[in-house]
Amino acid sequence: MDVYAKLKELNITLPELHPPRGIYKPARQVGNCLYVSGQGPTKGDAILFTGKVGSERSIEEGQEAAKLCALNALSILHHFLGDLNKVKGVIKTLGFVQSADGFSQQPQVINGASGLLMDIWGEDGLGVRSAIGTSELPSNISVEIEFIFEV
Amino acid sequence: MDVYAKLKELNITLPELHPPRGIYKPARQVGNCLYVSGQGPTKGDAILFTGKVGSERSIEEGQEAAKLCALNALSILHHFLGDLNKVKGVIKTLGFVQSADGFSQQPQVINGASGLLMDIWGEDGLGVRSAIGTSELPSNISVEIEFIFEV
Amino acid sequence: MDVYAKLKELNITLPELHPPRGIYKPARQVGNCLYVSGQGPTKGDAILFTGKVGSERSIEEGQEAAKLCALNALSILHHFLGDLNKVKGVIKTLGFVQSADGFSQQPQVINGASGLLMDIWGEDGLGVRSAIGTSELPSNISVEIEFIFEV
Repeated sequence: MDVYAKLKELNITLPELHPPRGIYKPARQVGNCLYVSGQGPTKGDAILFTGKVGSERSIEEGQEAAKLCALNALSILHHFLGDLNKVKGVIKTLGFVQSADGFSQQPQVINGASGLLMDIWGEDGLGVRSAIGTSELPSNISVEIEFIFEV
Repeated sequence: MDVYAKLKELNITLPELHPPRGIYKPARQVGNCLYVSGQGPTKGDAILFTGKVGSERSIEEGQEAAKLCALNALSILHHFLGDLNKVKGVIKTLGFVQSADGFSQQPQVINGASGLLMDIWGEDGLGVRSAIGTSELPSNISVEIEFIFEV
Repeated sequence: MDVYAKLKELNITLPELHPPRGIYKPARQVGNCLYVSGQGPTKGDAILFTGKVGSERSIEEGQEAAKLCALNALSILHHFLGDLNKVKGVIKTLGFVQSADGFSQQPQVINGASGLLMDIWGEDGLGVRSAIGTSELPSNISVEIEFIFEV
């Protein structure tokens, strides 16, 4: 299986890499663990999804936002590794959803990211996961997700 | 020390394993690190503790909820490893407490999980930990905890 | 480069180690990863920054709080390893900012910690990072940060 062929089949173009918005690195490898910084629903410089899921944003928009977080992680992996085919799978995902009062469907939202990773890597694209609701996120983004990949 | 004898001594029955409530795996091992997905205060299909600690739930109920999160993690370890005696200890715990406005005793709540792990594995059951308050959690659960165990 | 000389040059004195405020360890090493528990803006027994950033606390105060979290992590590393020069760099930082409604500059706040680590270890002091806003933190602290260091 070639990841780039798979992405083409899924009609996915990797977003442009944007520089970190703080004092940190996009990715760091230790042994066969590749840590990726918390990603938001951005495309290059543009932030596509802001506001609270459950009031300002629907679950479907939240899922799109989560998918974008995963795509940004893939873009980072592509630049860091030089070849996405070096990725063996997903170890861990920690997803935060900026949530309206009483909104409790964070797992459905984060599924937008997890579903994409499963579409690409199948069973290996499934890692452990936590989905957490929170009151505020940087730049008012709707979703932020950090990842650990296996290489 | 046999973990199952210890559990019996503590009068603890492992809860039934329930399937993940999203696109993820309950556990994933990398080297000697065993990552476990965010666990809630559930017993099989039933959610036992919902609502905010500090208003809808007391600290004691929060501690019971945290203990259940740890028990669900143990149940996952038992099924994943086949034998809980393969666990060497706890590396890391990250606990989220759905908190009422002004509630700031998250560490006491998460102690409900950490205390159990220490009762079982003693000093080795003590890992690093963060206790965080949050506004919303999936299905309105009162506590969610993710773990890394050493095997 | 000697870390202690660097700290002196930066006019930094490591804060006293305080005992954990719950059932956990300050640090735990697995292979070359050194996990450090969630740190707050404390000096010994005193909590120096409480309240929400964006209303009760300014960004600058939040940055000072974040820097203190990093200093407490350094103090733990110093005691755990016996020699801070054994630290190779920062793998990962996960920072939580107790945020006022509508406050969304969590990355700027956490930069207070990341900037210090970069001042000490340069490029190696840059790890991956997530900055998250939250509604409540233990003992009403303004910032809590957990770390993974490479040794």
